[in-house]
Amino acid sequence: MNPTFSPGVLSMLPIFYVGWKDSILSTSEMKLIHTKIGQMSHLTREDIKYLIDHTNPEFPPGQELYKQWLDAIHLHAKDLSSSQCADLVSLGIAMAKITFSGENTHDHRATVDAISDIATAMGIGDPVLYQGLMNQLGVSGREAPVTSYSFDPQRLYDELHFFRKEAVEHTNSILADPIFRIDEAVIDKDELRTLTLTRLQELARQGLGIYAYPMSVGGSNDMGSYMAAFETLAYHDLSLGVKFGVQFGLFGGAILALGATAHHQAYLHETGYGRLLGCFAMTETGHGSNVKDIKTTATYDHLSRRLVVHSPDWQAGKEYIGNALHSTIAVVFAQLIVGNENHGVHAIVVPLRDTNHQLLQGIKVEDCGTKMGLNGVDNGRIWFDQVEVPKANLLNKYGDIDDDGQYSSPIVNANKRFFVMLSTLVGGRICVGTGALSAAKTSLAIAIEYALRRRQFAPKDGEEETLIMDYPTHQHRLMPRLAKTIVFHHALYRLAEQYTSSPNEEALRKIETKAAGLKALATWHATDTIQACREACGGKGYLAENVISRMKADADIFTTFEGDNTVLLQLVAKGLLTEFNDHFHEERWAATWQYFGDRINFSLAELNPYFSRLSSVEHLESDEFIGGTLRYREKKMLVSLVNRMRSLIGKQLSPQEAFIKCQVHMIETARAYIERLAYRVMAESFKTMADTPEKDIIMRIHRLYGLGLITEHKSWYLENDYFGGIKSKALRRVYEHNIASFRKDIGGIALALGVNTEVYKVKK
Amino acid sequence: MNPTFSPGVLSMLPIFYVGWKDSILSTSEMKLIHTKIGQMSHLTREDIKYLIDHTNPEFPPGQELYKQWLDAIHLHAKDLSSSQCADLVSLGIAMAKITFSGENTHDHRATVDAISDIATAMGIGDPVLYQGLMNQLGVSGREAPVTSYSFDPQRLYDELHFFRKEAVEHTNSILADPIFRIDEAVIDKDELRTLTLTRLQELARQGLGIYAYPMSVGGSNDMGSYMAAFETLAYHDLSLGVKFGVQFGLFGGAILALGATAHHQAYLHETGYGRLLGCFAMTETGHGSNVKDIKTTATYDHLSRRLVVHSPDWQAGKEYIGNALHSTIAVVFAQLIVGNENHGVHAIVVPLRDTNHQLLQGIKVEDCGTKMGLNGVDNGRIWFDQVEVPKANLLNKYGDIDDDGQYSSPIVNANKRFFVMLSTLVGGRICVGTGALSAAKTSLAIAIEYALRRRQFAPKDGEEETLIMDYPTHQHRLMPRLAKTIVFHHALYRLAEQYTSSPNEEALRKIETKAAGLKALATWHATDTIQACREACGGKGYLAENVISRMKADADIFTTFEGDNTVLLQLVAKGLLTEFNDHFHEERWAATWQYFGDRINFSLAELNPYFSRLSSVEHLESDEFIGGTLRYREKKMLVSLVNRMRSLIGKQLSPQEAFIKCQVHMIETARAYIERLAYRVMAESFKTMADTPEKDIIMRIHRLYGLGLITEHKSWYLENDYFGGIKSKALRRVYEHNIASFRKDIGGIALALGVNTEVYKVKK
Repeated sequence: MNPTFSPGVLSMLPIFYVGWKDSILSTSEMKLIHTKIGQMSHLTREDIKYLIDHTNPEFPPGQELYKQWLDAIHLHAKDLSSSQCADLVSLGIAMAKITFSGENTHDHRATVDAISDIATAMGIGDPVLYQGLMNQLGVSGREAPVTSYSFDPQRLYDELHFFRKEAVEHTNSILADPIFRIDEAVIDKDELRTLTLTRLQELARQGLGIYAYPMSVGGSNDMGSYMAAFETLAYHDLSLGVKFGVQFGLFGGAILALGATAHHQAYLHETGYGRLLGCFAMTETGHGSNVKDIKTTATYDHLSRRLVVHSPDWQAGKEYIGNALHSTIAVVFAQLIVGNENHGVHAIVVPLRDTNHQLLQGIKVEDCGTKMGLNGVDNGRIWFDQVEVPKANLLNKYGDIDDDGQYSSPIVNANKRFFVMLSTLVGGRICVGTGALSAAKTSLAIAIEYALRRRQFAPKDGEEETLIMDYPTHQHRLMPRLAKTIVFHHALYRLAEQYTSSPNEEALRKIETKAAGLKALATWHATDTIQACREACGGKGYLAENVISRMKADADIFTTFEGDNTVLLQLVAKGLLTEFNDHFHEERWAATWQYFGDRINFSLAELNPYFSRLSSVEHLESDEFIGGTLRYREKKMLVSLVNRMRSLIGKQLSPQEAFIKCQVHMIETARAYIERLAYRVMAESFKTMADTPEKDIIMRIHRLYGLGLITEHKSWYLENDYFGGIKSKALRRVYEHNIASFRKDIGGIALALGVNTEVYKVKK
Repeated sequence: MNPTFSPGVLSMLPIFYVGWKDSILSTSEMKLIHTKIGQMSHLTREDIKYLIDHTNPEFPPGQELYKQWLDAIHLHAKDLSSSQCADLVSLGIAMAKITFSGENTHDHRATVDAISDIATAMGIGDPVLYQGLMNQLGVSGREAPVTSYSFDPQRLYDELHFFRKEAVEHTNSILADPIFRIDEAVIDKDELRTLTLTRLQELARQGLGIYAYPMSVGGSNDMGSYMAAFETLAYHDLSLGVKFGVQFGLFGGAILALGATAHHQAYLHETGYGRLLGCFAMTETGHGSNVKDIKTTATYDHLSRRLVVHSPDWQAGKEYIGNALHSTIAVVFAQLIVGNENHGVHAIVVPLRDTNHQLLQGIKVEDCGTKMGLNGVDNGRIWFDQVEVPKANLLNKYGDIDDDGQYSSPIVNANKRFFVMLSTLVGGRICVGTGALSAAKTSLAIAIEYALRRRQFAPKDGEEETLIMDYPTHQHRLMPRLAKTIVFHHALYRLAEQYTSSPNEEALRKIETKAAGLKALATWHATDTIQACREACGGKGYLAENVISRMKADADIFTTFEGDNTVLLQLVAKGLLTEFNDHFHEERWAATWQYFGDRINFSLAELNPYFSRLSSVEHLESDEFIGGTLRYREKKMLVSLVNRMRSLIGKQLSPQEAFIKCQVHMIETARAYIERLAYRVMAESFKTMADTPEKDIIMRIHRLYGLGLITEHKSWYLENDYFGGIKSKALRRVYEHNIASFRKDIGGIALALGVNTEVYKVKK
């Protein structure tokens, strides 16, 4: 004979039944549950006693009691509708309601929230967990419409896409033209290059190329819209995006940034409309990362008032130059030699071809051939054999030759001058970051759409097979990567905002550091994510028709171009060291600790034993914990890097030797800084965001991102006793529950990425 | 006025000078150094006192003393030859020798070894570290010939390649024919497929296809040589390798394993010589991993004595079928229905095309189109519309239909029968593992060759730029991956030996588990390694001419085909659980702990505080520590998995629900088992290996592999208090020193991988 359960107990029975099935609850979690139970107004005193008695981890319920609980659920659930059984909380409340005769308070918001909190504390976020129960009840939660999310995907899209939305939409409207439609079967490079050129010229004709240029040449002086256009192209066709970037961003951008008004007037209008095609000839075969030591020379001859551009040897040839086969002109970076003195790297406009597209005297161009991807881009090698151009072709904003043949520059320090000239790459680096994320988003949208449709293996013979999205390993594969993609996207958008709002020199220097770092992490993340999406789609991901393989091949080089990621992270670390040194001219550690003490209170809050053991769900999910933990690592790594560098340099190592010695440490410090930067920037955005379901989901994404980072670097935290084994294990559970909690909403988040999922849908 | 140093002190001065430059030495390391110093016979009592006085981490030498040391080194080194200055140990000994007048014992083996040990304890394995010193001395260690290794590359090759070397060499000699030469510019799938078919038929003509088949049909009954041929092809051309595997391994292999003698006689000779092309039609669009639930049916009609093969819907079409466009015949896997009863999946020979290569009635074939890679393989989809074949076409080894139309099988249990039939995939899985490693090795050889030639950034203006192999981040990128590649290679070779030596049924079951696991880890590792090599070559790695991009695209699907890796690791975990349960019919934990106690002494040796704190270099590099640490994780994860599964099943979850709940845990347990398996198998091989320099380097590779695994899983060890923060940090240093210690030998190891580096050399 089964006992009768009160409405209050019934309301909790489904989560108790399922929650007990996995005995992972810690004592501290149980305490939290007891506290919540004690505060629930819909429970009687007897209810509370019963529930607390049955949540003692030392005394789990026996088989007999389990059976009673299950029978009671069966008995009461059999008349419920399928929507009432949609999840465990609704089921409990519905059972309570139908057995209660007085005024019904069981579905009050506070009750629902409290029961949900307990379910979360019990780790019941994973739908697979209670699928067994639902199946036994004969109501299959699986059939719930996949379009029901905790937020509105369109509003989420709007919330996430706050940068130059008009330009995005305008670009998308242009891309709707059939000439941009991609046939995945076309892989021949010559055919792809021709198609890409045609498409580029169509974009230019429609005005996308001139966005960033001055109004005086017909542009809109709107770098932001140019960047948004690039990002939008990258969702769809990375070859087109890269060629667009080369033509308008690198080539035109160099003329804009390094040239004088006369150069702007001479070239930018035609460039912006794609009637003058140009390339950006900086990298050489022998010198990629180390641009400062390129070998191409531009020697000034005062007699003829001409510059002689020359490649001294094969390795000094310009390499990987995009647009090299289609261009009539190039901006060439070379060591400027005036009066036998080398003034360092400068940019010179050098015509490559005549009006019949024949190479000019002294120019040699070679095709880089087929590549892993981006085969729509015509990359080539270019050598110069004593090619003469007028002195006026020197882009002379930061260095000029006067009528007497004397060199002068507004920036006296040659090193500083070099870095100012290179800062023209900043916008491009932000674009490379957003473009890589576009490819990652496309791949994620495809993989998620597939995982919500593909089934494999039935729980039991004869039952419907399980959706692959319901497998925890699949959730682990996709959800943290989705979260990181969105957080990086947000950080790059905020950075683009800053970059396009006329920052002063000091602000620009910081933006450069951030752009270098975000470019590195976003592109590595994209490579990793696209790979994971390929595998998540199995064989389907390998077929060209399903696009991921193209995204993989095309985006792969993003980790290398516009700065090799490892080299960029060293730049970031050097920037951090410089900033640090700006604060401390003294070498006294007291000052250092005071600096950190002011800002983060290391020694007070975070390293006391109470904090390092605190392991409640609320604590581990709090911004106080997550943000503080990320901050601690970043700051501690920086302090120890400074310490090590000083010690090495004190021992007479050259700075470069010391850098090499600390290279791994530097890279990790830079990574910690950028990872936290993205976290911080999003936390900052929450302050001005209205409280909506969309904000809720973004906050959960942000939390998952933070928890994911701490998990990635867990061994560091444990090694440094920032937290101990117990907290680390609690963190693992919280992280897993957070991942699982996205199961219901992941389809909606994918919709909000801005990818056209109707187009990018895995074929059957 | 500088002091004069004794010969004994001089012998140690270079390592002291450099060692002190980085103050990472711990007290325990210093103790080790003191012990060593005390035992050195070439030192006087005064020498020992001086050296011990100057190795107190609390009192580092001052700037003045540094200068004295450096001056002394300068003074004595100026007359030495460059080979005497090749490394710090040689330099010290040479200085001692030239200042000593008595009988010279400074270069005795024991002295050299002891000084080298101290250098290692000081963490001076990294050539960049002492480059500064060498530069100051005017002798550049950089110019030392790169062909000088601590071992002979050819002998290392021989030691590592112990499986069917004749077949490898025979295959290589065939591949020297110009028809196998690859033009990276050819990417059109139709052209590639034609080339691949021609090449396949040439291989068959030369007898590589018939290796594995019985002597009665003209073969050599030598599965091993077939496997070696596959592996060798994969270094060079994965499309050819895969097509070879499909034709001879999957198609021919299925006839061999599932058919009767009559089938062998009918098909295998022609198949082996490539005159009959066939495909292996198992996977369907709707069912890949879950083969058991494929939808294709083969219904027996007793009236006509024929089987009717049918695809009930689009998703039931066979998908990704290699050789589908070139084949005249297929082995089709279908649900065998006899007398209205489904007897499960069986294989049937079904003709696809007539002698004019026209599709037969009821057969539909569709091209899978362009793929991410392997475009030389003609993958297609196949549907059957009520296609009739004679009953004799049933491959009837494990299930037959008698003359009365009754089904019978030597294996009564349908589930067991299914798994026995699928075990025909074991050989293929070993091949997929070795083939993926071939691609990884090719990529590593290319990236290492490039890193030993490419220079970027000078230590100081005007100096030669640094080889990129000298950057620690580059070493971290390549060296651990090289070590893992070799250890996995070795494990797969040993497994291939076992598999080809007629194992009994129980042994075969274990081989299946190991093959599934090694396939998964080796293919993931290959994907990761090829990616790292692409990035390590920068833009050069992206150009098709440098091969890595093709390796990446071709090998990518290896993580999916012949079993999705995640699914395979679940298989491994299930195998471990079964094996575990075979040992324990009782549920008493005492027995469990006794089991482990017998074999590993958890609680005794490894978990005592002494062990968990012990952090000397010798300890951390010992097999006792590394092997024990890997074993602990594997066993502990398995025990806790068993515990969790029992608890869930006790709570009435179905096995499949319990598996899903524990999926992440299962995968990690399987990974831990396989990772340690590869470690163990190599340790076993050392027992019978002669003591040679080649054995030394393999042991160092083995150690680096083990240290790498512990590093990867460090957070787990810390979380479980297996070791603490201090030991963890010591481990980090030891790991880094081990990585750096390969700098000198990495070129030689690359030569021993068996890759033709003359062919695969980065273009200029």
